[in-house]
Amino acid sequence: MAGNTIGHIFKLTTFGESHGPAIGGVIDGCPSGLKIDLDGIEKEMQRRKPGQSAIVTQRKEEDIVTFYSGIFEGETTGTPIGFLIHNKDQKSKDYSHIKDTYRPSHADFVYDKKYSKRDYRGGGRSSARETACRVVAGAIAKQILSDVKITAFVSSVGNIKVDSHYSSLNFLEIENNPVRCADPIVARKMEDHIKEIRKEGDTIGGVISCVIENTPIGLGEPVFDKLHANLGKAMLSINAVKGFEYGSGFNGTKLRGSAHNDSFDSDGKTRSNNSGGVQGGISNGMDIYFNVAFKPVATIMKAQQTIDSENNVVEMKGKGRHDPCVVPRAVPIVEAMAALVLVDFYLINKTIKI
Amino acid sequence: MAGNTIGHIFKLTTFGESHGPAIGGVIDGCPSGLKIDLDGIEKEMQRRKPGQSAIVTQRKEEDIVTFYSGIFEGETTGTPIGFLIHNKDQKSKDYSHIKDTYRPSHADFVYDKKYSKRDYRGGGRSSARETACRVVAGAIAKQILSDVKITAFVSSVGNIKVDSHYSSLNFLEIENNPVRCADPIVARKMEDHIKEIRKEGDTIGGVISCVIENTPIGLGEPVFDKLHANLGKAMLSINAVKGFEYGSGFNGTKLRGSAHNDSFDSDGKTRSNNSGGVQGGISNGMDIYFNVAFKPVATIMKAQQTIDSENNVVEMKGKGRHDPCVVPRAVPIVEAMAALVLVDFYLINKTIKI
Amino acid sequence: MAGNTIGHIFKLTTFGESHGPAIGGVIDGCPSGLKIDLDGIEKEMQRRKPGQSAIVTQRKEEDIVTFYSGIFEGETTGTPIGFLIHNKDQKSKDYSHIKDTYRPSHADFVYDKKYSKRDYRGGGRSSARETACRVVAGAIAKQILSDVKITAFVSSVGNIKVDSHYSSLNFLEIENNPVRCADPIVARKMEDHIKEIRKEGDTIGGVISCVIENTPIGLGEPVFDKLHANLGKAMLSINAVKGFEYGSGFNGTKLRGSAHNDSFDSDGKTRSNNSGGVQGGISNGMDIYFNVAFKPVATIMKAQQTIDSENNVVEMKGKGRHDPCVVPRAVPIVEAMAALVLVDFYLINKTIKI
Amino acid sequence: MAGNTIGHIFKLTTFGESHGPAIGGVIDGCPSGLKIDLDGIEKEMQRRKPGQSAIVTQRKEEDIVTFYSGIFEGETTGTPIGFLIHNKDQKSKDYSHIKDTYRPSHADFVYDKKYSKRDYRGGGRSSARETACRVVAGAIAKQILSDVKITAFVSSVGNIKVDSHYSSLNFLEIENNPVRCADPIVARKMEDHIKEIRKEGDTIGGVISCVIENTPIGLGEPVFDKLHANLGKAMLSINAVKGFEYGSGFNGTKLRGSAHNDSFDSDGKTRSNNSGGVQGGISNGMDIYFNVAFKPVATIMKAQQTIDSENNVVEMKGKGRHDPCVVPRAVPIVEAMAALVLVDFYLINKTIKI
Repeated sequence: MAGNTIGHIFKLTTFGESHGPAIGGVIDGCPSGLKIDLDGIEKEMQRRKPGQSAIVTQRKEEDIVTFYSGIFEGETTGTPIGFLIHNKDQKSKDYSHIKDTYRPSHADFVYDKKYSKRDYRGGGRSSARETACRVVAGAIAKQILSDVKITAFVSSVGNIKVDSHYSSLNFLEIENNPVRCADPIVARKMEDHIKEIRKEGDTIGGVISCVIENTPIGLGEPVFDKLHANLGKAMLSINAVKGFEYGSGFNGTKLRGSAHNDSFDSDGKTRSNNSGGVQGGISNGMDIYFNVAFKPVATIMKAQQTIDSENNVVEMKGKGRHDPCVVPRAVPIVEAMAALVLVDFYLINKTIKI
Repeated sequence: MAGNTIGHIFKLTTFGESHGPAIGGVIDGCPSGLKIDLDGIEKEMQRRKPGQSAIVTQRKEEDIVTFYSGIFEGETTGTPIGFLIHNKDQKSKDYSHIKDTYRPSHADFVYDKKYSKRDYRGGGRSSARETACRVVAGAIAKQILSDVKITAFVSSVGNIKVDSHYSSLNFLEIENNPVRCADPIVARKMEDHIKEIRKEGDTIGGVISCVIENTPIGLGEPVFDKLHANLGKAMLSINAVKGFEYGSGFNGTKLRGSAHNDSFDSDGKTRSNNSGGVQGGISNGMDIYFNVAFKPVATIMKAQQTIDSENNVVEMKGKGRHDPCVVPRAVPIVEAMAALVLVDFYLINKTIKI
Repeated sequence: MAGNTIGHIFKLTTFGESHGPAIGGVIDGCPSGLKIDLDGIEKEMQRRKPGQSAIVTQRKEEDIVTFYSGIFEGETTGTPIGFLIHNKDQKSKDYSHIKDTYRPSHADFVYDKKYSKRDYRGGGRSSARETACRVVAGAIAKQILSDVKITAFVSSVGNIKVDSHYSSLNFLEIENNPVRCADPIVARKMEDHIKEIRKEGDTIGGVISCVIENTPIGLGEPVFDKLHANLGKAMLSINAVKGFEYGSGFNGTKLRGSAHNDSFDSDGKTRSNNSGGVQGGISNGMDIYFNVAFKPVATIMKAQQTIDSENNVVEMKGKGRHDPCVVPRAVPIVEAMAALVLVDFYLINKTIKI
Repeated sequence: MAGNTIGHIFKLTTFGESHGPAIGGVIDGCPSGLKIDLDGIEKEMQRRKPGQSAIVTQRKEEDIVTFYSGIFEGETTGTPIGFLIHNKDQKSKDYSHIKDTYRPSHADFVYDKKYSKRDYRGGGRSSARETACRVVAGAIAKQILSDVKITAFVSSVGNIKVDSHYSSLNFLEIENNPVRCADPIVARKMEDHIKEIRKEGDTIGGVISCVIENTPIGLGEPVFDKLHANLGKAMLSINAVKGFEYGSGFNGTKLRGSAHNDSFDSDGKTRSNNSGGVQGGISNGMDIYFNVAFKPVATIMKAQQTIDSENNVVEMKGKGRHDPCVVPRAVPIVEAMAALVLVDFYLINKTIKI
């Protein structure tokens, strides 16, 4: 089926392995007439890239995007936008320790079994490096949806979490701390926790929350392409994601209908918002909000038992510079995927009435 | 975009409103040569249909499927399978109370805003009645995947939940109680709880867990069509679903990598299974398991404030026979959607090697 | 892949075998708010149905469409439109002569080889009966495109052809003769020719020309979904079609650029129209016109040599009531397919600019 | 809809404008385990590239393909194959004469009207330069279909044509003459004719015939994705194509059924092959053959009347080095598109039986 495309009208196709010469993508279906803000794209790339703070991987990747088509004199032309991000220093390294040995909870084993032939260098296609292309496309999607405000932030790391409702948080704090937590006091605790875990050679999981304000009413295409179903799929397609919930989420299962229902006010808004901005798979104009669960990074600096491709049990230990916790850098990826889903529905929605 | 199709090779398209003359579907891409077990389909339909026990809605719907094509002399021919489920007694009812009034936390409001023209009778297209068509297609998908065992069961209702790991449960108990809980003692508590809530005219949410045994290695198409991403989308497309998590899920975010990683044994299996049978978006041959969160049914027998189509604030109260808790009847729907996702990946997987 | 769907936004999926209980379809992506003219649909069905004149098959099929969804109080609601056309008298017939014997130039042989299991009754899925569903959907597409005028007519039968340019023909004549030829004098010759051929138990091919007036500028999605490429595919998907040409077509290959180029006038129209209303795959506002080649019907009343499923050479002869020439009844099908392609591009075109 | 992708399993997406920094593509769904023959790809590129003989454009384009992903140690890995072809010397030129003036029978006018913003340099996205990417992907498709032999050749230029049946031609002659005609004597006449026309500053059209030998039985997905329907669409999506016919084609419309039908022999082959290797949209194992009509190149060195973007009538004349006849260079493009269609159906066909 070829699973490297997302979207129906605004379509992103990505390609590239983490240690090949480049990764890249094609955006097909971007409307013409959009003045592209290259700085805006660059800014999103900076938020995702390695080495930006003391609590993320210290790998050096510049992540510079080169556009090859679809943009002319600074404006989109309606033709496909092709782009590359060249990989630096991808040559001379030694990958012999992972060439024939399957890292636990990585995709090495399944890629080998599924495809027989595998680029074993640093994760190959299964590397989270691929998400850089999503951030490029998401940044363009955001520029189309200029009225919509998409804000993601870290809401938990391990057992440390933000308890306040998002409406009482100051989103301007998010970029003021390396964890990208909207609560500066909790952020400090998270940062300390991540540092400690890194010292131990271990890793930790976390949750990213995302709030989408000012979505127009009517986005989403029931019955299978419900707005939250496609948001969920998009989030679950991000590396290391284990769960998705929107609105009242798993907690909502404990409530009674009389407490959960969102009654309407005379302006068409609802008093509560357990629906999370989506009813019957269609946006109702209220804030959309959801949580995305990330597992701890699988590469740890501790010895683990595993097997090689001939089923010999061997011991292995992570090498190199890896993130002790993925959520700080995943914040812009969550926003990008949300933007991609929304822009697709936004364009589709132009076709649904006579 | 027309969101009424799911699948890439094995495609289901559904149509129909809850109170129109019929609902139905088309399955395109079903392989030829499958001997159809009509009783197997009928059995799944019986599990979903209303009126089967004291704790579900007492509506009468026979849900008899008529096939019009694609099956000849009891065997699939590779051509599209069209089918209808006629709606009974859909005429003469009085819907005036919901014609112009938006039921809280239903899709009435958003359908009206999105499409302007809406079939207001009993939920129309947004009714969960549509899922009957999914169960038909899912039953056929199960017959193709005869080696794979898909088992869903209710694992929580409100605050009452099954605490044991699924491996210690006896799945044969599931159909022995009206809640479809795998633990008979917990099932009894859930049943009592649901009855109590119904008496109050209220509703309650719950969680369905699903375990898929014996999945072949290699299903799933990264990077966007990861196995768990499409499973997640499929589950989130079911009415009333608010969340999806697989493997360690949201709880896994609290773990360290050293505790979360699944180390390999010499037979290629993993010792633990926090991955939930999926690594890098591809099945690894271990059990796939996931949880699906359902909100409380929105139709309650209590007075609620809402608005009509002219934004007048009005009071409304549910009428008719509705489910006090949706999870018992949603068990076969979860299984059906899982089967649809798996069969699609199973067929795609035939194309990925030279 | 499941090839029973056409369209990207306005999607038609069809199902059904010629001698099963019914054929039918689902239209997904039809915009809401269209007042459906049922008489308009009925009229198109009448043009396609058997038995309407002396030169077509005398089979009796009433071809009555029943809609099951997507239309409420006479108006489309944006939800999928499901419909059936029941087959009459499909039971008790004797098909033993074609059960295991492959009719020459029919699809029996390839369906058997491809799928192993085949509905052999009267062509099964490969019967042109399936096109009735296309006419239903095409009629709805025409109603959306109310400003566009799509006119098909028979321009040749065997060696008898209309020589005049379409602009000198009176399209009102088309429905005045059973051949559906726009030139009444040629029509008479064609009719006589068809009658003669039928007497001989033989069949004859022909060409249908189609003219689309008043198409908006801008329809078509290069580079692969060029307007004429999708029109061509749609026409070639009709049973018995062997060729498609638009604008100057095959004849244009003989011209020099200086003679073929269409120079512009100050109003943006072109003086000549060798382009056939399409430049670079996008409509330019001039008339779109094209020709569709139909082979002679394969079922003849003469003895032919063929083989059975065990490769024994046998003699066979057509039975029953078949068309001696397919083009008169294919006129509404050509129009329907043109309408389906255009409406899809029309809706897509709403998404291409900021 | 984003029309820059072709294929369902083996999908090619292309991007790039003729005078941007590069054109490129992504192939998603290429099976793993294919040893890529880079020389084979290079050879196809050489056949398409400008400047290869005296009768084609003398532009210099090296057309060197760089692969960025999906191939590892010389073998496909099942992940998407991204590639670029850099454009040389695309800078400093003067395009002021076509910036605001619409070349007759080019796509300038319609792109401007459809998208408002247009890359006017040398045709931009509508340039046939884009087809270089198709040749790359087609070359890989050919390597998968190593048993199938796809041969295209020029069968007419203007009024000069090959009259012999393809079976009497020696395909080894095709690459021995600059026209790529399979008959060396006719080739010489065509060559002289093209030279003469070029001297006059004019252009001429032609026909390419294609023969596909050794196709497995069973390719094609009725009813809409018939083998010949998708072949037709693929051919019609090539720049300058005006028509497509397969098997008996337009000529077959003149025949009677008794003459046209292909009767079977005891080995399952047919005695005649008016069907052109396709019955009911599915390959029957006989040779597939078809014709593709190309109009004369629109850029001529003669003065023509046209308009500018403000509807002023102006005179314009072609500049630069253009092909006087496109068919010699289009031969590998026709083969590439045929290979893309076949490989897609070949992979799909693996999914259609239990």
